[in-house]
Amino acid sequence: MNVPEIPFNRIAIVGVGLIGGSIALASRERNLCRSIVGVGRNPDRLNEAIARNVIDSAVSSIDSLEDVDLVIVCTPVDRIVDHVASILKATPSETLITDAGSVKSGICEQVLELDGGRERFVGSHPLAGSHQSGFEHATADLFVNRKCVVTPMQETTPELTETMMQFWKNLGMLVHTATPKEHDRILAMVSHLPHLVASALAGIVPDSALAFGSTGFRDTTRVAAGDADLWTAIFNDNSDQICAATSDMIERLSEFRTALKNDDREAIQNLLESGRVSRNEFERLQEASLRETQ
Amino acid sequence: MNVPEIPFNRIAIVGVGLIGGSIALASRERNLCRSIVGVGRNPDRLNEAIARNVIDSAVSSIDSLEDVDLVIVCTPVDRIVDHVASILKATPSETLITDAGSVKSGICEQVLELDGGRERFVGSHPLAGSHQSGFEHATADLFVNRKCVVTPMQETTPELTETMMQFWKNLGMLVHTATPKEHDRILAMVSHLPHLVASALAGIVPDSALAFGSTGFRDTTRVAAGDADLWTAIFNDNSDQICAATSDMIERLSEFRTALKNDDREAIQNLLESGRVSRNEFERLQEASLRETQ
Repeated sequence: MNVPEIPFNRIAIVGVGLIGGSIALASRERNLCRSIVGVGRNPDRLNEAIARNVIDSAVSSIDSLEDVDLVIVCTPVDRIVDHVASILKATPSETLITDAGSVKSGICEQVLELDGGRERFVGSHPLAGSHQSGFEHATADLFVNRKCVVTPMQETTPELTETMMQFWKNLGMLVHTATPKEHDRILAMVSHLPHLVASALAGIVPDSALAFGSTGFRDTTRVAAGDADLWTAIFNDNSDQICAATSDMIERLSEFRTALKNDDREAIQNLLESGRVSRNEFERLQEASLRETQ
Repeated sequence: MNVPEIPFNRIAIVGVGLIGGSIALASRERNLCRSIVGVGRNPDRLNEAIARNVIDSAVSSIDSLEDVDLVIVCTPVDRIVDHVASILKATPSETLITDAGSVKSGICEQVLELDGGRERFVGSHPLAGSHQSGFEHATADLFVNRKCVVTPMQETTPELTETMMQFWKNLGMLVHTATPKEHDRILAMVSHLPHLVASALAGIVPDSALAFGSTGFRDTTRVAAGDADLWTAIFNDNSDQICAATSDMIERLSEFRTALKNDDREAIQNLLESGRVSRNEFERLQEASLRETQ
C-alpha cells in the first residue's frame, strides 16, 4: 500500500485523555496529519491541551466538526456508539471513523446499523495504556511496539480496514485483525479477567495484612488501582465473555484448593507447572514480536 | 541496643542461592561479620561463589561447620528443619541459627522440639526475592527498605529475637515480629494466594490468546514464572491457610460473576471500588514505610 507523504490532512480526537492525547502527539511526531482538532466537553481542559501542544484546536461538540479526514473516538466504551452516530451525521461521507474502545462486539454491531456505519467505521483497540489518566501523561511513544487489534465486520470494506491498520502501524504498533467477537473473547481472558482477578485479590486482603505485601502482591494487584467507572463500563459491555472466563478461573482455583486439601504435592506441582509454562510462552511471544519489529 | 562494631565474627550460609548469596554480599558490604562460609552440596557451585567473592570459603556438609556465630538457612522450606537439626548438632551452643523460609509455623514448631532449638533458633522471613535464582543474581541491596518478619515462639528468648531483628535491620530491612501462625495467615493472603492466582490465571489462558496479553496480563501473572518446586513446598507447608484464602478468593470471584450475569452495574462498580481502595491503601502503606526509613 502506498502511504501518501502525509496520510491525513486533519484528524479529530474525541476524548483528549491519555489515549487520545497520545494518539495526537504520536500522529504529529510521525507526520501522519497536518493538524489535530480535539473534541471534549470541558473547554478549560481543551485549552490546556492546546497550550501543551497536544492538539492544535478544539471544539466542544461533535456537531461543530467539519472537514476532518479521520475521527478517532477515545471515550469510555459506553459512550462510543453515541459519539460515532453524531460523527456520522456531522461529517461528510469521506470522513473515516475508528475508536479505541477495549470491547468491540456491541459497538461494532450497533454502528453497522447506522447510516454510513458500514462504509466509514471500523473498530480498533490499541492495547496500550497506563494506570495514569489525562493528556498530561500522554506520550508520543505510548504505542510503539504495542499491539493493536482492528476489528472489521463481514460487511466492512477491505480498503477501510487496510487504511486503519496502516494508521496504527504508522504509530509504531503491531497490528492484528480479528472479528469483534473473537477480540472480545480473547480480551476477556488476557485483559478483563486479569483486571477482575487483581481487583478481587486486592479487595479481599484485610487492611491489617496489606503492610506485609511485597513485590508479588504489588505486581499481581497493580491494575486494580484503575478507574472503577471505566472498568465497570468495560465489564458490563463484555459481561458474557468475562463471566465465562471467570468460571474457568473459579474452576482452576477449585482444583488448586482440592490439591491443597489432599496434600497432593504432585497435583500442586502440575498446576504450578502449567502456569509457569504458559507464562514463559507469553514472555517468549512478547520477545518474538519485539524482534519482528526491529 | 548496642551493636558491636562487627556484630559477628563468622557467618555461615546454608544454601548459597539468590537469597543466601545476597545475605552474604550485604553482610560483608555492611561489615556485619569478618568472614562468610557457604554450605552446599555442589562443590563446583560453591567454588564459583568463592571466585565471585560472594563467600570466603565453603564446606560441602553442615557437619563440617565449626566456630561460626550465626548460621542462616536459605534452603527450600521442606528442607529447613532437617538442616537446623544438623546445625544444632554440629555447632557449639553459642551459635545462633535462623532461616529465610516463606512459611514459619511448621518449621518453628518442629525446631522447638529439638535439643537447643528454643535457645538458639528463631525463624525469619526476609520478604525479598526475584523471579531469578542463583547467586549470580545476588545483590547486596536486595534487602534495602524491604520487610522482614522475625517469628519468635512464646518459648523463644527475647535476646535471641532482638539479636536477629538487629541483624536484618543492619541489612537495611524494616523488621516486624509476628507469631509463626500470624505470619503464615498473613503471608497466605499477601504472598501465597497472589502466587496461586497468578499461576491459575496464566494456566487457563490458551496459547492462541497469549499473544494478545499486554502490560496488565504481564504484571498480574509475573510471579507465575517462579520455580514450581520451591512453590510446591511452600504451598504444601502452608496448605490450611492457603486453602482458606483461596476460598475467600473463589467467593469474591463468584460475587463478580453474579453481578456480571445480572448486569448489575452498581454491584460491579462496588466490587471494583473495593479493590481500588485496598490497592491504594497498600501503595500508601508502602510509601509511608519508605518515608519512615529515610
